[in-house]
Amino acid sequence: MSAPVYLGIIGVGGVGTAFLQQLARLPNAPKLILLARSNQTLLSPTPSYSPAIPAAEWKTAVEAPSLTKSGALTPDEIAGYLASAPGRSILVDNTSDPALAGSYPVFLRRGVSVVTPNKKGFSSDLALWKEIFAAANEGKALVYHESTVGAGLPVISTLKDLTATGDEVTRIEGVFSGTLSFLFNTFAPASGSSSAKWSEVVSQAKELGYTEPDPRDDLNGMDVARKLTILARIAGLEVQAPDSFPIESLIPSELASLPSSAEGIKEFMTRLPEFDGQMAAIKEGAEKAGKVVRYVGSIDVGKKEVRVGLQQFDKDSAIAGLKGSDNIISFYTRRYGSNPLIVQGAGAGGDVTAMGVTADLIKVVQRL
Amino acid sequence: MSAPVYLGIIGVGGVGTAFLQQLARLPNAPKLILLARSNQTLLSPTPSYSPAIPAAEWKTAVEAPSLTKSGALTPDEIAGYLASAPGRSILVDNTSDPALAGSYPVFLRRGVSVVTPNKKGFSSDLALWKEIFAAANEGKALVYHESTVGAGLPVISTLKDLTATGDEVTRIEGVFSGTLSFLFNTFAPASGSSSAKWSEVVSQAKELGYTEPDPRDDLNGMDVARKLTILARIAGLEVQAPDSFPIESLIPSELASLPSSAEGIKEFMTRLPEFDGQMAAIKEGAEKAGKVVRYVGSIDVGKKEVRVGLQQFDKDSAIAGLKGSDNIISFYTRRYGSNPLIVQGAGAGGDVTAMGVTADLIKVVQRL
Repeated sequence: MSAPVYLGIIGVGGVGTAFLQQLARLPNAPKLILLARSNQTLLSPTPSYSPAIPAAEWKTAVEAPSLTKSGALTPDEIAGYLASAPGRSILVDNTSDPALAGSYPVFLRRGVSVVTPNKKGFSSDLALWKEIFAAANEGKALVYHESTVGAGLPVISTLKDLTATGDEVTRIEGVFSGTLSFLFNTFAPASGSSSAKWSEVVSQAKELGYTEPDPRDDLNGMDVARKLTILARIAGLEVQAPDSFPIESLIPSELASLPSSAEGIKEFMTRLPEFDGQMAAIKEGAEKAGKVVRYVGSIDVGKKEVRVGLQQFDKDSAIAGLKGSDNIISFYTRRYGSNPLIVQGAGAGGDVTAMGVTADLIKVVQRL
Repeated sequence: MSAPVYLGIIGVGGVGTAFLQQLARLPNAPKLILLARSNQTLLSPTPSYSPAIPAAEWKTAVEAPSLTKSGALTPDEIAGYLASAPGRSILVDNTSDPALAGSYPVFLRRGVSVVTPNKKGFSSDLALWKEIFAAANEGKALVYHESTVGAGLPVISTLKDLTATGDEVTRIEGVFSGTLSFLFNTFAPASGSSSAKWSEVVSQAKELGYTEPDPRDDLNGMDVARKLTILARIAGLEVQAPDSFPIESLIPSELASLPSSAEGIKEFMTRLPEFDGQMAAIKEGAEKAGKVVRYVGSIDVGKKEVRVGLQQFDKDSAIAGLKGSDNIISFYTRRYGSNPLIVQGAGAGGDVTAMGVTADLIKVVQRL
């Protein structure tokens, strides 16, 4: 319980930076011995794995003569370094790198636990998912990834508690993208009305920094599809890949072939108004039925169906009433009956995503 | 990690029975060595603490000649029995007994972890709260009590994650009683309208079994006050006792002195219609402001204020839109900003309460 635990961190982007701030204030934090950013790696010298890297001063720690500096290390090298520490060790992957996620089995098999908000390891090929959990079993290591769905919201932990205690999850439904939440809450509000055109709302969201640099990365639905893949697998469905079920893209088919370059983004945004009529028709269709349209993901466990796309909702429903860029996730289960267990709140942002990572880290340290 | 863990259970009421069902289906469940109900205790014989009591057949296990039968044991005797087991042990208290809760420090000091939905230990005098956590520290034992607030909903765990990762919880607000949720959702629905009188709604809830046998135990607000006490303490407020802040009772003062006997219950229900006008006025007052009235609890952490009572809410707010007997709990924090983190769903019932207990048990076993 009181043996030191060692920590390696990869990635110092928005989530990584917020995580380092939280780590610096954590009582009984594990010893930070590796911090890797793009082409630079900072390490505590071997074989003592001491001194630790100060989390609070990580930006200037690279100047400390007592620490080892290196260029980029391979996942194998990092796994070897962490696995040889004189105690249990944990990798926190704060990147969205699919290659690093593909190496989780290497870490886990060597007894290095993994904590991460990186969706790639859990939402790519089913083979990787299975290999990750088999490797964790083999290496007696732990894998926690709360922030892969809904950022810091208690989504993964709640679903795992439901299944682990023997409840039968029948359906999961919700708004899983902060960006798409904002777009539809603004374009088709449940109370009051909006005259804004679809392309205007997308432009506004882009300017506010609510979308990815390329808004098509939100509009294609793949981020939502990856989250659904993770939840469906925890609920027991063998989803082969994040594109092995219907995903409704909000990119007009006429614009689908534009390049992903800056030029392509510009042309996409310029031509998007041509399709405002299509989105207006979808909005009006819902309004005629007294409803609003939302971009949702749903999993029907019994029918083994996963879907991502537009749906109509009653104006007094929880999904319709969502504010800002909030996420909402509803779990329908045998025990909870007709009224689902609902979790709602900010599902994106550095601080809340890092919170999920930090909370996972605390739980892993408690279990090691 | 693979050393056997031993389990004692006290209480086989609604929650206790549901918990035993879940335990019977749990993979790698701890070994059940003590099962105590009112005046009867079933034990695995010492010194081998074997065989275990079969959770699936607990009702007939009393006839098994291989098990030890006894009358009621004192908490000290039970703590001694569990602490002497050849491994770590856990007490699950499925009662609402304040005396047993007062003995948690005895268990914890001897290294016996405690898992319970019993609010009494955590919502009585602040001295007991402090003694419980000091004893856990001393005995290197764990205390989990998710089901003391919102049954199986992830309320305690979410609040602990928020505070442990360094977020600043500024306000907690919600509907914490399934009974009072049903009463107000029925009496003053947010959509549509109801002509039912207050006393009729209370009678209906009583007949449906949604209230305690004595509905005054719901209407006095003390159950909500106990839940608020627990959350406020986790959020860092030193609440002395569950009645050391304003609690608005829905028992008319003219009826406050009726005895708690069956006669008293009957007279209370007979005379309640005399006060329908008062509740109708409260409902109409809210309606004139375009709002609905709800019975809520709130904690303002900065102002160190805890309140339990009636409040008005916008009709499109999440609290107003609550269905059936659902609970809703909103956490306002620095990181989550103006839109709170919300947890919603059934907050009462044997199965979902037991689920919180079982999920806690799994976590304690993982950490021991």
